[in-house]
Amino acid sequence: MNKRRLLLATTNQGKAREIESYLEDLNIEILSLKELGQSEFFSETGTTFDENARGKSLFYSMNWEGLTLAEDSGLEIEALNGEPGVLSARYSGEQATDEKNNQKVLERIKEVPSEKRKARFVSCMVLSQKGKIITEIKESVEGVITFEEKGTHGFGYDPLFYYPPLKKTFAKLQPEEKNKVSHRGRALKKLKEYLLTHLGSDL
Amino acid sequence: MNKRRLLLATTNQGKAREIESYLEDLNIEILSLKELGQSEFFSETGTTFDENARGKSLFYSMNWEGLTLAEDSGLEIEALNGEPGVLSARYSGEQATDEKNNQKVLERIKEVPSEKRKARFVSCMVLSQKGKIITEIKESVEGVITFEEKGTHGFGYDPLFYYPPLKKTFAKLQPEEKNKVSHRGRALKKLKEYLLTHLGSDL
Repeated sequence: MNKRRLLLATTNQGKAREIESYLEDLNIEILSLKELGQSEFFSETGTTFDENARGKSLFYSMNWEGLTLAEDSGLEIEALNGEPGVLSARYSGEQATDEKNNQKVLERIKEVPSEKRKARFVSCMVLSQKGKIITEIKESVEGVITFEEKGTHGFGYDPLFYYPPLKKTFAKLQPEEKNKVSHRGRALKKLKEYLLTHLGSDL
Repeated sequence: MNKRRLLLATTNQGKAREIESYLEDLNIEILSLKELGQSEFFSETGTTFDENARGKSLFYSMNWEGLTLAEDSGLEIEALNGEPGVLSARYSGEQATDEKNNQKVLERIKEVPSEKRKARFVSCMVLSQKGKIITEIKESVEGVITFEEKGTHGFGYDPLFYYPPLKKTFAKLQPEEKNKVSHRGRALKKLKEYLLTHLGSDL
């Protein structure tokens, strides 16, 4: 039987690395947009993670025979009414970087006391094939925003996201530790279960 | 500060054991219905896990100052249109036992081939206090129903629930292994995060 092929519809290298390493023991060939020559940019215009992940997954699945996986994810801070939310990656504007985004968050909630700095990382994954959604997965993890960046691992808002059960920010966790508790790690665990349960024993 | 107290609104010993052992490192005193003299039986009349867990949690929270945690959970088998579902515990009737329930499931899908024996364990937890819901958590795990019972650990439908990523039924897993992947283990992980994030640093 031919190896299944899965297109990873993301241009974010941090995400791609986490997803590829989680799925590497499955008998699936994972391809990037670049490898397929699909450089066209899909514009995230949705107002929720779900909408963005659905749109992106369906968009890239149209010209491709295999499976397509898209993910949208981000940080929801209670004291900011759920911001940065779908704007997580570009919170600090056109020239956004992780560093600038983190500084903007810290600045905006600098007066907020620790007991009101609750936040949630959310990951929505949509698996589709030729314009049809196969399954959707949504997972989240609860934490607290720190008063300064802590840790150097991970990417994005990881240095600000303190995870109470482990008493560390995500950026202080090793990749394997982060995968066990993170929103994306949980979604990937469910995705793997789904693939193994529904796509047959050839995986 | 006084230790927080949490009433575990379940009479199922298998569930109680899993929940207590997961939360034992928190600074929370966990009480059973029996310890509170609350032997009155709450009748599960809902048509979904969510409704049952909400009803049970609110019911037992009315005469109790502390937190109340209720859980409803069960097995949904695709080939049986989601049965046994909310009937999981009493699938084989008034005198239901784990053994009888498992035999009934095996009998009902004995003609169903392996690729159509997909199933899902679902856990709904509702945490409340004095008649008000504080948070709700719903988690699930995907698997496949075996053709015979396998394994002696766990309880309920665990001997029939094959989990493809670990290539074993839940009843073949040690308690710690099962907690890492099971519906209840995942719900408890989120509950612990919630308690630690929202109920302050005294935990």
